[in-house]
Amino acid sequence: MHNISQYQDFFITYLKNQNIQKEPKNLYEPIEYILGLGGKRMRPVLTLMAAEIFNTSYETALPAAMAVEVFHNFSLVHDDIMDDAPLRRGKETVHEKWDLNTGILSGDAMLILAYQYFEQYESEVFRDLAKLFSKTALEVCEGQQWDVDFEKRNDVTIPDYLKMIEYKTAVLVAAAMKMGAIVAKTSKEESDLIYDFGLNLGLAFQLQDDYLDAFGDPETFGKQVGGDIIENKKTFLYLKALEFSNSDKSVQLQNLFNLKLEDNTAKIETAKAIFNESGASKATQEAIEMYTFRAFETLEKMNLDAEKKTTLRTFGENLMGRRV
Amino acid sequence: MHNISQYQDFFITYLKNQNIQKEPKNLYEPIEYILGLGGKRMRPVLTLMAAEIFNTSYETALPAAMAVEVFHNFSLVHDDIMDDAPLRRGKETVHEKWDLNTGILSGDAMLILAYQYFEQYESEVFRDLAKLFSKTALEVCEGQQWDVDFEKRNDVTIPDYLKMIEYKTAVLVAAAMKMGAIVAKTSKEESDLIYDFGLNLGLAFQLQDDYLDAFGDPETFGKQVGGDIIENKKTFLYLKALEFSNSDKSVQLQNLFNLKLEDNTAKIETAKAIFNESGASKATQEAIEMYTFRAFETLEKMNLDAEKKTTLRTFGENLMGRRV
Repeated sequence: MHNISQYQDFFITYLKNQNIQKEPKNLYEPIEYILGLGGKRMRPVLTLMAAEIFNTSYETALPAAMAVEVFHNFSLVHDDIMDDAPLRRGKETVHEKWDLNTGILSGDAMLILAYQYFEQYESEVFRDLAKLFSKTALEVCEGQQWDVDFEKRNDVTIPDYLKMIEYKTAVLVAAAMKMGAIVAKTSKEESDLIYDFGLNLGLAFQLQDDYLDAFGDPETFGKQVGGDIIENKKTFLYLKALEFSNSDKSVQLQNLFNLKLEDNTAKIETAKAIFNESGASKATQEAIEMYTFRAFETLEKMNLDAEKKTTLRTFGENLMGRRV
Repeated sequence: MHNISQYQDFFITYLKNQNIQKEPKNLYEPIEYILGLGGKRMRPVLTLMAAEIFNTSYETALPAAMAVEVFHNFSLVHDDIMDDAPLRRGKETVHEKWDLNTGILSGDAMLILAYQYFEQYESEVFRDLAKLFSKTALEVCEGQQWDVDFEKRNDVTIPDYLKMIEYKTAVLVAAAMKMGAIVAKTSKEESDLIYDFGLNLGLAFQLQDDYLDAFGDPETFGKQVGGDIIENKKTFLYLKALEFSNSDKSVQLQNLFNLKLEDNTAKIETAKAIFNESGASKATQEAIEMYTFRAFETLEKMNLDAEKKTTLRTFGENLMGRRV
């Protein structure tokens, strides 16, 4: 086994050796651009790690890891259009740097390129990877659609929200790990367990992202703190605060989350105070712990030696330990 | 073998029995809408026909035919956004009837759904179909990108243009036929020949579409006659007219194709006159005949009985015989 920063290096080296750039330039340059913007490469790292967990070299899993990363970036390019986002990882988004049409078409090409990486495997593995990938990709689209729909709805429940983040975020983390298992030709039982591990970790990760969006350190969070409050996003924090508040406070919070303001300083402070006072912050942290715990429980069911379980547990603890 | 209208009926029955509609509605309703808008269903018909040409029942080819049609409609939804087109087959386009985000996301889902139809085949066939599909889909994206790029360029050559329509249109016609051959597990030689047949027919089809865009009968053409002239599209007609004209006429034509007018009546008449006088119209018709002839030549190389060759030839003649 290797450590996380080694897997990152292996993946980045592989990524840099891909000869993606070709004609027509206006189609392929944006792809190279977005793939080169960086990020933690969490999903491909999980694919490489899972392959080694199941006794197969990470090299074998590189094309599958690349497919996951290319797909993830496809979803970023199209989501940034839908969210009208000017920046991604501190740089211009593709539709800003080029234009709307380039964003749409380059995104489409990335979705297809992702499938092409599976062609490097034999038929049975190819089929299993592509099937899991299609199922996951469609769920990510459904999650994105729920997210868009929820903006206009006032009857979103906690189960609705959890389903949305499961589809939009967690299934891809889960599938990234299962792809490593598929490449390693491990048993269905072990593949399904690693999928469950990834799914729970993905849910914990997204809930933590919601929490940090409000309570993270502006110096290190990387995104605008309070962004979800500004955008009136009905996150877990918001929904729990509604659940725990009396009707006066609920109305105040709902009214707050109908405002579109120039200066959001006061709005953010008020929302955070309600999140804390209502017990929503605590409930969110408990939910993060619960999903992390569920992931670790799944780990115990797996037929793995202690060192490998420790590697996966450490990855989970590091991911959840971020307090940025 | 069956006739074309029978294949259309088989396909439409299959399409109607697909249970595409599910949650979230805002993702799946636009997909059902665009797939229900009609059209000749030329591509899936070719897949069914090719399967029977190679001695396999059309039923076996229905999922592959569906993948081709779903992909074709994906490309229409995203192209209509890029072209800012309000109407498709006389009805509102998806991004007009819903909105931009719905058009992008429903299109993405269709691209994934297309791959999922291949899952109904065994591993080897699945792999061959998905590989051909990915290659073709990426070429269609590249063709669309060239088409977008050409609008801003003044140095487009005839070979550039032919490459663009090959990628944007002809490869999907070719792949639709080869998918029928793959499902029928025919030899590589025969699969490649039917691909060539489809490719040449696809080129002839697109050139004829360009021709009819200027010279078709407004009563029956279905699209706005003169649309390419209004949009300053550098079609085969335009490029041939430039090639055949003296420098005065060339400048006149180039200036004409830089205009954006309210009333295009005079512009269309002038352009058509230049197309005719320069010999570009005749050259276009000759090119259509040449590609159709090449398709029929390919047919002669194939190891098929006379009845099957006649079926394919009749299809080509019908397609090219449209003078609407």
